Amino acid sequence: MLTKGVRIQRRAKDKSVVVEDLLAVEEPLEIRLAYRGKQGVLASRGISITMRTPGADEELAAGFLATEGIVSSCEDIEDISIGSGEDNSDLGLAPNIARVALREGVDVDFEQLSRHVFTSSSCGVCGKATLEALSARGLKRIEGGGFCMTSDVLLSLPSKLLELQRTFARTGGLHATALVDPSGEIIDVAEDVGRHNAMDKLLGRRFLAGEWPLSNHLILVSGRASFELVQKALLAGVPVLAAVGAPSSLAVELADNFGMTLAGFLSDKRFNLYCRPERVEEDASS
Amino acid sequence: MLTKGVRIQRRAKDKSVVVEDLLAVEEPLEIRLAYRGKQGVLASRGISITMRTPGADEELAAGFLATEGIVSSCEDIEDISIGSGEDNSDLGLAPNIARVALREGVDVDFEQLSRHVFTSSSCGVCGKATLEALSARGLKRIEGGGFCMTSDVLLSLPSKLLELQRTFARTGGLHATALVDPSGEIIDVAEDVGRHNAMDKLLGRRFLAGEWPLSNHLILVSGRASFELVQKALLAGVPVLAAVGAPSSLAVELADNFGMTLAGFLSDKRFNLYCRPERVEEDASS
Repeated sequence: MLTKGVRIQRRAKDKSVVVEDLLAVEEPLEIRLAYRGKQGVLASRGISITMRTPGADEELAAGFLATEGIVSSCEDIEDISIGSGEDNSDLGLAPNIARVALREGVDVDFEQLSRHVFTSSSCGVCGKATLEALSARGLKRIEGGGFCMTSDVLLSLPSKLLELQRTFARTGGLHATALVDPSGEIIDVAEDVGRHNAMDKLLGRRFLAGEWPLSNHLILVSGRASFELVQKALLAGVPVLAAVGAPSSLAVELADNFGMTLAGFLSDKRFNLYCRPERVEEDASS
Repeated sequence: MLTKGVRIQRRAKDKSVVVEDLLAVEEPLEIRLAYRGKQGVLASRGISITMRTPGADEELAAGFLATEGIVSSCEDIEDISIGSGEDNSDLGLAPNIARVALREGVDVDFEQLSRHVFTSSSCGVCGKATLEALSARGLKRIEGGGFCMTSDVLLSLPSKLLELQRTFARTGGLHATALVDPSGEIIDVAEDVGRHNAMDKLLGRRFLAGEWPLSNHLILVSGRASFELVQKALLAGVPVLAAVGAPSSLAVELADNFGMTLAGFLSDKRFNLYCRPERVEEDASS
């Protein structure tokens, strides 16, 4: 399942329509190794959790193991089972888990592996528990309608950001995250090759200055809106996240569940509102 | 240091020039927590390694800890030290390490953390050792000039890929990775919200079919070329990686060190060659 249908508000300068749209599906997948340990006892160990689009999960697991140097030929893999979600018992495999059984004799150096498999970010709970787990971690709902911005002001942001990016970098290779006040002024920008890093840098600056939470600000990202970026913005208490690119399915679900306004495909002509549209006012002329 | 100058070959349909260009810098950063453990003994533990653009590392570390829910106010952080690279002794801090000292009394639940901080991919060795470590892991140099493609054929690939992406997804939210033979035929495509997943799916399919290494193929990615994507393609023995977007500094260094041809900003009009340009032939007309 690569895509998921949703109902969105599509806004332009002087009109607003509700339309059906498609989102790229994003869900976690845990890759787990099953191998013969000491005395030939069958052991199992999770080695990676990644946010992926469901489908071709066997290939994803095999490709991950091959390109991490854990297996070197397809004979090293005895079997790959993907959790169906239909059997959630201890005996079955939960959804969003790929269990790879290695051929007897294939040695895995977990010590070396843990140095080479790097952690990039938050989340890490498989299956539908992801959103519930965030609640359990103390992620708070964004309350009230204190923050408000007009469509016009939102439409003005991409060109302002581009202007700032032009000043800062001419590589075409950096993601930008901007902090915006309700009047539409960009008050800070951070850039990085990694979009979660750009977000962390921007938010970290405010956090260190004691300006936390950021309940009266909008955050603008130069790329796509993933689950991870929404989660970071929620932790900061940000009421509106706007992305120049597309959001994923889990990004929209997370934003909606926690009361955040999520805008995507923001250009100087139009944007989409995926949830909580009331924080972006239609202009008087429309 | 956000950017790095390099000398590249810029190719268009009927010309080729050598120019100076700028790359976005990409380097690993390890975030390490220093805290009072049992009996008040000072302990230290790495909790994350991310590929980032150097600069604002204190903010990056603070933002990561705040948005992962590890700290909740700036008072929880006593001090942040960034390795200078000038003191590499046991007493000093190696480069590309951010050590965050937490206020006494701030509890970190490492057990919970390891479930919530998810691993996305390869690398994981800090500092300049990154490239050497890959050699040590058995990553082999791409040898010889067996694979060759003309500029014309390379320029034809983006529109072919776009055509296939149009068929597969209309979300604007998926990355694509394609496997291309020397004649320019796209023989397989994988799509995912994560670009490393799209690469793993494509490569995993071939790996499971026993078609490994892929010494006579080009890989095309719809986005940017990061260190991580180059590393995965190298593990698969792929001689040429072409990206529609920009490469990072470490992606170019890695490709160059291991003999891979790296092309970036590929459109139907032009592209850049960052290293090993000899595998892309200039057309006879030029």
